[in-house]
Amino acid sequence: MSSIVVIGGGTGSYTVLRGLKKYTDQLTAIVSMFDSGGSTGKLRDEFGYLPPGDIRRCLIALSPESTDNLFLRRLFEHRFGNGEGLKGHSFGNLFLTALRDITGSDLEAIKQAARILNIKGKVLPVTLNNCTLCAELEDGQIVKGETNIDIPKHNPSLRIKRVFHEPAALAHHECIESIKNAKAIIIGPGDLYTSIVSTLSVEGISEAIQESSAKKIYICNIMTKHGETTGFRVSDHVSIVNEYMPIDYVLCNNKRGNPMLMKKYEEENAFFVEIDYENLKSFNIIERNLITEPILLRHDSVKLAKTVMELL
Amino acid sequence: MSSIVVIGGGTGSYTVLRGLKKYTDQLTAIVSMFDSGGSTGKLRDEFGYLPPGDIRRCLIALSPESTDNLFLRRLFEHRFGNGEGLKGHSFGNLFLTALRDITGSDLEAIKQAARILNIKGKVLPVTLNNCTLCAELEDGQIVKGETNIDIPKHNPSLRIKRVFHEPAALAHHECIESIKNAKAIIIGPGDLYTSIVSTLSVEGISEAIQESSAKKIYICNIMTKHGETTGFRVSDHVSIVNEYMPIDYVLCNNKRGNPMLMKKYEEENAFFVEIDYENLKSFNIIERNLITEPILLRHDSVKLAKTVMELL
Repeated sequence: MSSIVVIGGGTGSYTVLRGLKKYTDQLTAIVSMFDSGGSTGKLRDEFGYLPPGDIRRCLIALSPESTDNLFLRRLFEHRFGNGEGLKGHSFGNLFLTALRDITGSDLEAIKQAARILNIKGKVLPVTLNNCTLCAELEDGQIVKGETNIDIPKHNPSLRIKRVFHEPAALAHHECIESIKNAKAIIIGPGDLYTSIVSTLSVEGISEAIQESSAKKIYICNIMTKHGETTGFRVSDHVSIVNEYMPIDYVLCNNKRGNPMLMKKYEEENAFFVEIDYENLKSFNIIERNLITEPILLRHDSVKLAKTVMELL
Repeated sequence: MSSIVVIGGGTGSYTVLRGLKKYTDQLTAIVSMFDSGGSTGKLRDEFGYLPPGDIRRCLIALSPESTDNLFLRRLFEHRFGNGEGLKGHSFGNLFLTALRDITGSDLEAIKQAARILNIKGKVLPVTLNNCTLCAELEDGQIVKGETNIDIPKHNPSLRIKRVFHEPAALAHHECIESIKNAKAIIIGPGDLYTSIVSTLSVEGISEAIQESSAKKIYICNIMTKHGETTGFRVSDHVSIVNEYMPIDYVLCNNKRGNPMLMKKYEEENAFFVEIDYENLKSFNIIERNLITEPILLRHDSVKLAKTVMELL
């Protein structure tokens, strides 16, 4: 069964999957396994299991939005605002952790959660190895832990030279099979190094994508991310992703927010990712208005899915 | 629809409901709402919601024991053994607390949990008032909080004179209706004061039971409980329950454990409850071997249900 494979972290993949599930139930999410912040990071430290956060988001994305499922979906998304030791925890993360306790297996916990949430399609962790994501900066400094790369404590103007896993991350075999049999592979949107490259650089993933005859679509981010992609244009994103895989189409958003909104983002050091055609001559660029207006500069799942389906 | 109403706390009602659900799906559990210990007590203190523990046990009892339901049941029963702030928490309690957060209503949270667990029958909190259970001892001393009565810090040889709620507990109206329409009402087994009397003494419950034409069955405890029923025989239990309701049948266990087992219980100050027929002349006593042998002196749900059904 050839399906659409969506590779990335939680938030970006959530948007893509939610949109695409209206067109097909042959969806496979291959999920980054390196989150070390927040509720996920705490559970990871305390239980030693794989990080649940990104898996949780993909499970919710693929869960039917029916009345029957409403409370389970809301439970999974619920975050405790109260309770010593509970405050800040995502209930869905606790759900996955309890299932991991019971089943003794990360994979089995995900499968059971998928069954309980009635999801169609598959959610696969990119690796079953419990690894720390590390980044080497341009000055040779090594930053350890996804959340330390994501929310930089180092000088954020230093560029990331490469990311690697400690210990090595080997691809989960079901991911390899899904990639090989896919009719389309969608990468992003998502944090370039901490969600995208961290997943593409898992041993076996890049090779499988290169061998696959699937159409390969990269969805570029709308805004830059402080410390991770400071000053990046579309071509900077594309050239890094292209190190790991061929790209048939690059999907770019061409719609800015209103000046007030742009200013708010700029105060957080996030800037509009410019489409620099002059450096993108060898790529098929599809530019569209892809944002959810007008409150947030986020990809709109409906617009995104519609555009992806036109390319298949 | 006339149904069997089971009144009590979590553990005793769990046993009765699990057995009876093989005979009927017209079961209503009316559940004690005064637990203040353990995971339940902690959540109660931190969130200010009704205590979830006894409700959780009754929900699991009424949930079908099918393969489809297996993981949800196991999740509900799971207790975290790890995690700062999570250790010792029952996952089912967190489930109910999250549902309470989402729905904004204790009743709605129970209803949604019942739906998710596919239960047949009803689980009703005896009251929607958030009360503290208090006991007045024979020396006039007042002990506040269910767990302080249950695990006495006071001199345990002092008898309990009465229990009361602070503030007053008013019966939830659905309980009154269920009791009035029941064909049978089963009380116990369970801690005499903290589960049974605490529930029977909720305003409106005793009156409704007296008005109901249902057969009324009291299932007496197997062993005494230190501080709560020290030295009690069957007649001591019966005379206290009888203050709140007429009793058509008293079900008593007549089977002791082996000497080794009895000794273990005696070391915890728990003794076999003797059937003192001489003081029980005005009651219909049904005595049977009702225990699950040989490891624990607990009521066996199959034996209990079979005996109850013979009386209806």
